[in-house]
Amino acid sequence: MSKVKVAINGYGTIGKRVADAVTMQDDMEIIGIAKTRPNYEAFVAHDKGYNVYTLADRVDDMKKAGIPAAGSIDDMIAEADVVVDCTPGGIGEKNKALYEKAGVKAMWQGGEKHELAGCSFNAEANYEEALGRDFVRVVSCNTTGLCRVIYPLDQEYGVKKVRVTLMRRSADPNDVKNGPINAIVPNPIKLPSHHGPDVKSVIPHINITSTAVKLPTTLMHLHTLNIEMEKDCSTEDVKALLAKQPRVRMIGQGIGSTAEIMELGKDMGRPRGDMWENCIWEESVTMYEGELYFFQAIHQESDVIPENVDAIRALTEIETDGTKSIAKTNKAMGL
Amino acid sequence: MSKVKVAINGYGTIGKRVADAVTMQDDMEIIGIAKTRPNYEAFVAHDKGYNVYTLADRVDDMKKAGIPAAGSIDDMIAEADVVVDCTPGGIGEKNKALYEKAGVKAMWQGGEKHELAGCSFNAEANYEEALGRDFVRVVSCNTTGLCRVIYPLDQEYGVKKVRVTLMRRSADPNDVKNGPINAIVPNPIKLPSHHGPDVKSVIPHINITSTAVKLPTTLMHLHTLNIEMEKDCSTEDVKALLAKQPRVRMIGQGIGSTAEIMELGKDMGRPRGDMWENCIWEESVTMYEGELYFFQAIHQESDVIPENVDAIRALTEIETDGTKSIAKTNKAMGL
Amino acid sequence: MSKVKVAINGYGTIGKRVADAVTMQDDMEIIGIAKTRPNYEAFVAHDKGYNVYTLADRVDDMKKAGIPAAGSIDDMIAEADVVVDCTPGGIGEKNKALYEKAGVKAMWQGGEKHELAGCSFNAEANYEEALGRDFVRVVSCNTTGLCRVIYPLDQEYGVKKVRVTLMRRSADPNDVKNGPINAIVPNPIKLPSHHGPDVKSVIPHINITSTAVKLPTTLMHLHTLNIEMEKDCSTEDVKALLAKQPRVRMIGQGIGSTAEIMELGKDMGRPRGDMWENCIWEESVTMYEGELYFFQAIHQESDVIPENVDAIRALTEIETDGTKSIAKTNKAMGL
Amino acid sequence: MSKVKVAINGYGTIGKRVADAVTMQDDMEIIGIAKTRPNYEAFVAHDKGYNVYTLADRVDDMKKAGIPAAGSIDDMIAEADVVVDCTPGGIGEKNKALYEKAGVKAMWQGGEKHELAGCSFNAEANYEEALGRDFVRVVSCNTTGLCRVIYPLDQEYGVKKVRVTLMRRSADPNDVKNGPINAIVPNPIKLPSHHGPDVKSVIPHINITSTAVKLPTTLMHLHTLNIEMEKDCSTEDVKALLAKQPRVRMIGQGIGSTAEIMELGKDMGRPRGDMWENCIWEESVTMYEGELYFFQAIHQESDVIPENVDAIRALTEIETDGTKSIAKTNKAMGL
Ligand SMILES: NC(=O)c1ccc[n+]([C@@H]2O[C@H](COP(=O)([O-])OP(=O)(O)OC[C@H]3O[C@@H](n4cnc5c(N)ncnc54)[C@H](O)[C@@H]3O)[C@@H](O)[C@H]2O)c1
Ligand SMILES: NC(=O)c1ccc[n+]([C@@H]2O[C@H](COP(=O)([O-])OP(=O)(O)OC[C@H]3O[C@@H](n4cnc5c(N)ncnc54)[C@H](O)[C@@H]3O)[C@@H](O)[C@H]2O)c1
Ligand SMILES: NC(=O)c1ccc[n+]([C@@H]2O[C@H](COP(=O)([O-])OP(=O)(O)OC[C@H]3O[C@@H](n4cnc5c(N)ncnc54)[C@H](O)[C@@H]3O)[C@@H](O)[C@H]2O)c1
Ligand SMILES: NC(=O)c1ccc[n+]([C@@H]2O[C@H](COP(=O)([O-])OP(=O)(O)OC[C@H]3O[C@@H](n4cnc5c(N)ncnc54)[C@H](O)[C@@H]3O)[C@@H](O)[C@H]2O)c1
Repeated sequence: MSKVKVAINGYGTIGKRVADAVTMQDDMEIIGIAKTRPNYEAFVAHDKGYNVYTLADRVDDMKKAGIPAAGSIDDMIAEADVVVDCTPGGIGEKNKALYEKAGVKAMWQGGEKHELAGCSFNAEANYEEALGRDFVRVVSCNTTGLCRVIYPLDQEYGVKKVRVTLMRRSADPNDVKNGPINAIVPNPIKLPSHHGPDVKSVIPHINITSTAVKLPTTLMHLHTLNIEMEKDCSTEDVKALLAKQPRVRMIGQGIGSTAEIMELGKDMGRPRGDMWENCIWEESVTMYEGELYFFQAIHQESDVIPENVDAIRALTEIETDGTKSIAKTNKAMGL
Repeated sequence: MSKVKVAINGYGTIGKRVADAVTMQDDMEIIGIAKTRPNYEAFVAHDKGYNVYTLADRVDDMKKAGIPAAGSIDDMIAEADVVVDCTPGGIGEKNKALYEKAGVKAMWQGGEKHELAGCSFNAEANYEEALGRDFVRVVSCNTTGLCRVIYPLDQEYGVKKVRVTLMRRSADPNDVKNGPINAIVPNPIKLPSHHGPDVKSVIPHINITSTAVKLPTTLMHLHTLNIEMEKDCSTEDVKALLAKQPRVRMIGQGIGSTAEIMELGKDMGRPRGDMWENCIWEESVTMYEGELYFFQAIHQESDVIPENVDAIRALTEIETDGTKSIAKTNKAMGL
Repeated sequence: MSKVKVAINGYGTIGKRVADAVTMQDDMEIIGIAKTRPNYEAFVAHDKGYNVYTLADRVDDMKKAGIPAAGSIDDMIAEADVVVDCTPGGIGEKNKALYEKAGVKAMWQGGEKHELAGCSFNAEANYEEALGRDFVRVVSCNTTGLCRVIYPLDQEYGVKKVRVTLMRRSADPNDVKNGPINAIVPNPIKLPSHHGPDVKSVIPHINITSTAVKLPTTLMHLHTLNIEMEKDCSTEDVKALLAKQPRVRMIGQGIGSTAEIMELGKDMGRPRGDMWENCIWEESVTMYEGELYFFQAIHQESDVIPENVDAIRALTEIETDGTKSIAKTNKAMGL
Repeated sequence: MSKVKVAINGYGTIGKRVADAVTMQDDMEIIGIAKTRPNYEAFVAHDKGYNVYTLADRVDDMKKAGIPAAGSIDDMIAEADVVVDCTPGGIGEKNKALYEKAGVKAMWQGGEKHELAGCSFNAEANYEEALGRDFVRVVSCNTTGLCRVIYPLDQEYGVKKVRVTLMRRSADPNDVKNGPINAIVPNPIKLPSHHGPDVKSVIPHINITSTAVKLPTTLMHLHTLNIEMEKDCSTEDVKALLAKQPRVRMIGQGIGSTAEIMELGKDMGRPRGDMWENCIWEESVTMYEGELYFFQAIHQESDVIPENVDAIRALTEIETDGTKSIAKTNKAMGL
């Protein structure tokens, strides 16, 4: 069987990781990536053997800079079975017409609205919903992290109410433009925030409120969760349930911060030191006065990457069973 | 009537502010401050006219450095009616014997345990409890900030349950030793944390759970609160109640971060730019599905300062009415 | 004699400080300040009693927000003897036509080019040059800091060559937009940088090269200087010379960082905790193999403030002797 | 020929990298690593197949924690041909007696004094000096970075004088204890600093002065260099010379900060995203008024790693030609 042809439109933090993760699979391949400027990321993409496409009017610039651009973004789309749109939030929306015109399946990331794709995706929670669709949105890093724990808890015990505080990194590690340097920024100030409720785009019946802040750190988001459940369960029950999720890592062994989790990712030899799993501090998981509490850290740059791979399988129906796709993706990535 | 003679043992972040706040009152005065090293803070204290005392074996060192130390800490204590102990957490405990021996009243800060003083103090919540006592503990910056909002809400509507996430600055602005530089540190990892429950040392019947993290910022703590109340009330009711508290400032006017609150403190001409009040974002205050949510920022260096002044009045009974003391302190400080 | 009427166009970091410093003088007064948005800074300005002006089309917005705007910027300019333009770099240039049309004297800050005013000003170095002029530019925080030490060294010993590394804070303390959060940014990359040579706009014959970086800190800039001089001199000679400069503070007493200098400013009771002087670590000043080395910290928000006051006197010729103006300004500000 | 048996004493930032780099070589192997606590780093070491040794009295603790410690540090040393001591600065000194008693060759890192080993090592500059010795010190990350550029410039043009400002990261990325969070710390304050002169422990005749600061960043050090040379040369000459050094990477392609260099390391697929080379901004390299200027970034965690591999070869004389060792190490590591 021939491999699914995947194009990456927007080769930044997310795009380059999706490209590499797709390359690790045996049932799909990257036929090109699109980059707007000939910076170091474009050179590395070229060195890795990816065909580098660009905006129609910049093909010459790319060539002059030393990257023999394979052509325009339209050319790239024409070759693809699926386009993974990883352009900055809001830009992806404008690309929809392009994909429709070319009759190509497309996926967006969490920076776009649910309505753009009509289906918001998390591999564990609603793989089936995306089967054979033309368009899908892989939800944001935070929503992905929330779905991965809320969904199994809801399946097992019934989730009555979720209250979450999202402490967000303000800039990715390679971004030197955005601050704050030394402040806490409640964002949004109006409460509750829209972040938590985005979970409903995947699991509509969940009752969830959230508050969110932006922090002077680049490494990971941190969630503090408070969950009321329908059925009785113990701390040990929850620990056991969370520990067996395919994209959850229970954290202990003296790891006391997001910095040490990132160190662990590097020590384990992960590409780019990525930590694709939700990292839950085992010691933090507690049922207290009938409510569940825990801390989880989310590596914003990478937790959505395996979900993108699964979404490609769902759209193209090369695998119709979500559990099998998750297992296949995890195995290929070494997760 | 002669003024109450106050000595400050430990002239750091808290001690120097208590000294200046006491000096602003007309019913008490600073008779001396104790500093262990002749650094710039000692020189400024001396320049301001405070008698600088030190450890018995360092009097000569102080003199040599150019600060004519008025004597040993024992000498200072002998002169005082009340000692405000502002030494680092844990040291204060060791000083208790000193105060008992000298037969002087003493106050500690939040770094010490409740048991040391037997009475934990917040001016709004339990002034009367401290009247005439020998020892009292002014609760920590975080607990003070929590008491100031929980107490009036409880009085008015009955507080059923409080869930709070405490995002703590990891170092004071002048501290260059402590990190993290770029990480989020859940602390403690074991949930729920002890921070919230410290409110019970002041208002025992409150049901409160907390989670806490340490952040790479020096300016302020941020609390995100979720409160369930006994009686019905609206967003507007709560805003009105909070706005009229004597040590709460409702924040708006485009202020979007702890950094801008600190700028406001400077712009208002506050000494050291201090923000003694809880700073609550008015826009954040919301009753949602029967639960109250809001964000408040706490200036860790200064919110306990007016409470220290009130505690001196309570211990010495120069004012037996807490409301009057609060009003007097606020007026003298320009709060 | 009536006071010089001063208007502040652009009431941000610099503008609000110039306003307060002018108010401290007995020979000048603020007749209005211009603010574009009704944020907290505008409210504080109004509370302090300043007439708040705004862009012509925003007068109503200001009024609606609760600040009875005294009128448009044009109205303000019409009342003034001197306009101190403290708008963001590049905006000031566009205002020149306004000032010319109104026939009012005007001053710009370091964000504008030398050519705009034709005269770049530092009180110690070239007060006389600005006497009676229509326009002048008060040089940037970094250039001001450099002129204050290079000028006297040049007068006394002849400066042969200056090499300086400028480590710049990337954002002011109230700015939460700009990063980096965790990186060093050489800026500009092309060497040598334009920063040092800006000293020549004040003292043309100085031979100076500089390298500059932007850092994840908000408090102060730090300069490391290497100076070759014409005449022989000792470490002690230089220390003595620097120590007696009117706007230099020699730093010691255990102060080991920019954070502790800012703490000193607060402890001293300075408005906003400002540190108007160059802060030179006394221990760092060293003649080594015939070259001078030292570290100085520059409080970017405030070091140009006394220079702005002096520049007003120079333009209006209410004082023709620079040394007298400096002394008068310093005394009024408590420097 | 059997492989050289290498033991790593102290498996932290440097130790774990040396272990992995040795494993990449075909002429040496890791026979064990020593770790004091059973934290995540110990588990990863164990998972990677390294024999984990520990302090004699902690062997049982390790076993209990789930890591079957292969024995005590003494046991490990007894098996080794060379011990690479990567314990924290100052501890290494105490281990010398151990190595002498066991009659094993040993290497220390830059945290120890030159005198401890009697020979300070940089592969490019003085490989031959270390041949067959019992002890050697691989110089610090900063000194290594300086030697790599000063040595070839000196060989080619003669270095008359070097002035360098070292802007140091204050904590490694996984270290959440150390600050500052928001300040610049001149360190040492006394000038010139000892950092630059440490180059003389490798190349004694170099005339070099340095100034150093500590910054709130974790990623890399940044050096700004000013070099006077004996012979005439052009900007292009220097660029060409630097570009051909085996452990120098010329940086361009829109990379504007240490953060983007670290991103490049990750993008290139380097283990842990390490950047073993000096990273020199090509655009910064400039001959100006007869003096050379440039910026280089140094990845403190990894630049000394290839030098450690070479030092093992020098001590054991399995390769007597430094150039060949450098080439072999680079090739094996993919540098
Ligand atoms: N970074 C994260 O933490 C994160 C996490 C999860 C989801 N997301 C979402 O992923 C999407 C991408 O975010 P990112 O962080 O990777 O952004 P990014 O800025 O790192 O990368 C975006 C890339 O798109 C390119 N680009 C811009 N305009 C383009 C156009 N018109 N055509 C093609 N390419 C264009 C840019 O040059 C850049 O390389 C967003 O929707 C974002 O919300 C980001
Ligand atoms: N900094 C805050 O944010 C904050 C807020 C609220 C409460 N507190 C509490 O206030 C207390 C003081 O904290 P701080 O932040 O002011 O500490 P600090 O370190 O700033 O100051 C403590 C001072 O005590 C001096 N000292 C140390 N040992 C001493 C001794 N044996 N005798 C006399 N003086 C001694 C130190 O030299 C220093 O000047 C602690 O209990 C702390 O938990 C601190
Ligand atoms: N902040 C510093 O560290 C510093 C130091 C020395 C010199 N400077 C220079 O001082 C000048 C002002 O800088 P700043 O840091 O105070 O900026 P800022 O952004 O803090 O303040 C600028 C103010 O001007 C207002 N403004 C914008 N457009 C305007 C317009 N068209 N008319 C009137 N007001 C307008 C803004 O609302 C803001 O209040 C710049 O030239 C800057 O380079 C700044
Ligand atoms: N981190 C850097 O940036 C860097 C760069 C170049 C050189 N160095 C030098 O390398 C050396 C190691 O530094 P590091 O940063 O890797 O330190 P580190 O703290 O990361 O690691 C040191 C390790 O040694 C272990 N250890 C402590 N005492 C021990 C003992 N008695 N026996 C065995 N192991 C013990 C610790 O548990 C830790 O795992 C120091 O000399 C340092 O100056 C560090």
